[in-house]
Amino acid sequence: MSESLATKELTGEEVAELHREYVMQSWHKQGEPVMPVKSAKGIYVYDYDGNKYADMSSLLVCSNLGHELPEIVDAIKDQASKMCFMAPAYASEPKSKLAKMIVDLAGNDFYQRVFFTNGGADSNENAIKMARMVTGRQKIFSCYRSYHGSTLGASFASGDWRRFATEAGGAAPSFVHFMNPNMYEDGFNRGEDDEKVTALYLKRLEDQLIYENPDDVAAILMESIVGANGVILPPKGYMEGVRALCDKYGILMICDEVMAGWCRTGKMFAWQNFDIKPDIFTFAKGVTCGYVPLGGVVVSKRISDYFTDHVLQCGLTYSGHTLACAAGVAAVNYYVEHDIAGHVKEMEGILKPFLEEMEAKHKCVGESRCIGLFSAMTIVKNKETRELMSPYHTANPVMGKIMGALKDKGFLTFGRETNVNICPPLTITAEELKAELPKVDEVLTWVDENFCD
Amino acid sequence: MSESLATKELTGEEVAELHREYVMQSWHKQGEPVMPVKSAKGIYVYDYDGNKYADMSSLLVCSNLGHELPEIVDAIKDQASKMCFMAPAYASEPKSKLAKMIVDLAGNDFYQRVFFTNGGADSNENAIKMARMVTGRQKIFSCYRSYHGSTLGASFASGDWRRFATEAGGAAPSFVHFMNPNMYEDGFNRGEDDEKVTALYLKRLEDQLIYENPDDVAAILMESIVGANGVILPPKGYMEGVRALCDKYGILMICDEVMAGWCRTGKMFAWQNFDIKPDIFTFAKGVTCGYVPLGGVVVSKRISDYFTDHVLQCGLTYSGHTLACAAGVAAVNYYVEHDIAGHVKEMEGILKPFLEEMEAKHKCVGESRCIGLFSAMTIVKNKETRELMSPYHTANPVMGKIMGALKDKGFLTFGRETNVNICPPLTITAEELKAELPKVDEVLTWVDENFCD
Repeated sequence: MSESLATKELTGEEVAELHREYVMQSWHKQGEPVMPVKSAKGIYVYDYDGNKYADMSSLLVCSNLGHELPEIVDAIKDQASKMCFMAPAYASEPKSKLAKMIVDLAGNDFYQRVFFTNGGADSNENAIKMARMVTGRQKIFSCYRSYHGSTLGASFASGDWRRFATEAGGAAPSFVHFMNPNMYEDGFNRGEDDEKVTALYLKRLEDQLIYENPDDVAAILMESIVGANGVILPPKGYMEGVRALCDKYGILMICDEVMAGWCRTGKMFAWQNFDIKPDIFTFAKGVTCGYVPLGGVVVSKRISDYFTDHVLQCGLTYSGHTLACAAGVAAVNYYVEHDIAGHVKEMEGILKPFLEEMEAKHKCVGESRCIGLFSAMTIVKNKETRELMSPYHTANPVMGKIMGALKDKGFLTFGRETNVNICPPLTITAEELKAELPKVDEVLTWVDENFCD
Repeated sequence: MSESLATKELTGEEVAELHREYVMQSWHKQGEPVMPVKSAKGIYVYDYDGNKYADMSSLLVCSNLGHELPEIVDAIKDQASKMCFMAPAYASEPKSKLAKMIVDLAGNDFYQRVFFTNGGADSNENAIKMARMVTGRQKIFSCYRSYHGSTLGASFASGDWRRFATEAGGAAPSFVHFMNPNMYEDGFNRGEDDEKVTALYLKRLEDQLIYENPDDVAAILMESIVGANGVILPPKGYMEGVRALCDKYGILMICDEVMAGWCRTGKMFAWQNFDIKPDIFTFAKGVTCGYVPLGGVVVSKRISDYFTDHVLQCGLTYSGHTLACAAGVAAVNYYVEHDIAGHVKEMEGILKPFLEEMEAKHKCVGESRCIGLFSAMTIVKNKETRELMSPYHTANPVMGKIMGALKDKGFLTFGRETNVNICPPLTITAEELKAELPKVDEVLTWVDENFCD
């Protein structure tokens, strides 16, 4: 039975049927219908009925260079022919190269080493462990408005309600959450109130650090730009203020670049949008564009130096996975060689004004936020009162309907809570972007007319 | 700089040098020399100086089908040309196929679904979360003599001292450890005392369950056969006894098959060596032989049914990774089509008698344990008193010297604590095995003469 199934070509219906029956579907009840995907190329995804969809979220903000980029595919095939995997205890060419390439891009005056993992959650887990080892302190501060992954450590550090299921067994001590600003939802106006909001939230954070004893705090862990919770752009000066608090109290700053890194914001790393250098930053997704699972932790010389005298109590079988690193070398090289960051800034010149137009035009768009090709709109029921269409930890079916209406037009994306994300592959052309965006306008008009006060 | 490095062919020295300078090395101090590996094929690994080494541990007990097996390599290249990755929300052919193949091999009368992850730690994390959701209970029982991974949840559940660094931030509550039998170190004799040891340890476990309130215990998590802590074979009847305790108290049994699964013991899954069916079992490593990172959680119909009515609060970007599942389909198909389990039983017929001979012949071999091609020897300083060469959580440099002496003979393996593991690729031939084993004999003679009382 297994033999014949392994080599048999399945129809789309068979793929969907086996999935419904045998695959455990994340974040859902089981047995619900799912769309079988046959292939993907560039910014497009194709089903088994010949329908074409634009992948306007880079799947889960990972397919930064689109699907089936020949340079990455060829690197995978080439490495597969040589050596798919060699254990962490041994050096291999792709791992050595990729580590140096990443350190150089981050800035080899300040950064020194990369610890490789399988993905974002893993990376944050290891960053937390390292910070505790280096400082000898225990507490990890992180934001309520955040997501860092679903393994226990990453989940305890995460802020949104996906943490609750993990905490059902009792949370580990020493994870402390603080409220990070979300200007729109907090009743402020971006571009007007930044200074005030920054001062207010930094004061609150410092108060909380003092009440928790800053000498017990190992690290403040933050997404450089909050991703899954709605591309929340920090007010001007906020990230620099957090860095200053870290310096004042001897706390390490860890930036989670899992979604925001790899040119997503128009900079190689999103923290480069601010006047800061995190002591540690974590990455995944865009480093291989998801072609092979890979994540990592980049550490400063200071952190690295600590571990020349102390054993790094971290490890996993696939740390520095050969095939994954080969895909990473090809992807990272492509970002640099094709100036993807520059292209993203150009495309931002189309996406950002479009979103501002949507915000001005539609009753249902409370606020839009865009940096590079990382964007979201806050969908509201009432623009005057800022009443959200789907308040935190509720599930207004309207949000699902919006995603469905977009999908019906061949526009695939995802959103959480009351947000609709638009984060296309960074290789999207001006023509492709201009062809897709009017679909959003149409759906928002339908939302205005049917679901807003 | 990055551009030129990406495409430049490096010498072995350059690979080693970049590794020392830029790669964060797991479980070590940084900056130490590591061997650069150029290629690997079958059971052999090659360095840049043309030296050939037999991989007698399947790296970290993952390269079950050896290196660069054409069937897996071709499947990777083929899938890479079609679609490297599609997000968990969509069905894809490799994911659908692999899920059904695994459920069928586990037994589709009892098992229903597979939740895919990136590796073993991930798998155990998710199994723990599922067990808590399904039972509404919190406590997870696991063995002191165990290892389940290094992310916080997997590490809290692990028993050996690698857990301590994770616990530095404070352990999560609801992880309870119990002592599982290690007959030799506990002063018993395998084959003579099994019944007594089983009764003793089951009584202790039941007492501990009662003292912890069995109604609060969600699951007992165990490696089907303890791997990294020395291939500790459970005494006869022990695993069945644990299953009976689970049934008696409504506790789920979770078996960790990360090392022991995929024909390693001569059965497709190691729990099939016992008269038990775990409610949940986790896998990784051998499912793709490490060629692409992949892990998973297999659940019974009962667990699956719970999640048709309740949302599964688990997820990760690469759940059901397309390229990884394609590698998995090829590997799993190979196990079945080539009757690897049968071949392993044949090779056990060479390895096991050899190890028994070593145990009889050498002062330094306290005990040998072997099931399939999963084996370890306990190295002792004094055979009469059973004084271990490297007692728990110490690091007698003799153990490193033994590994070094084996390596000098072209025999690569690893061991932890006072154990030397021999776990070659399952595709090893009788000739290859017979060519390698005498090297072990030679090194053990040298140990007898130099380090034993």
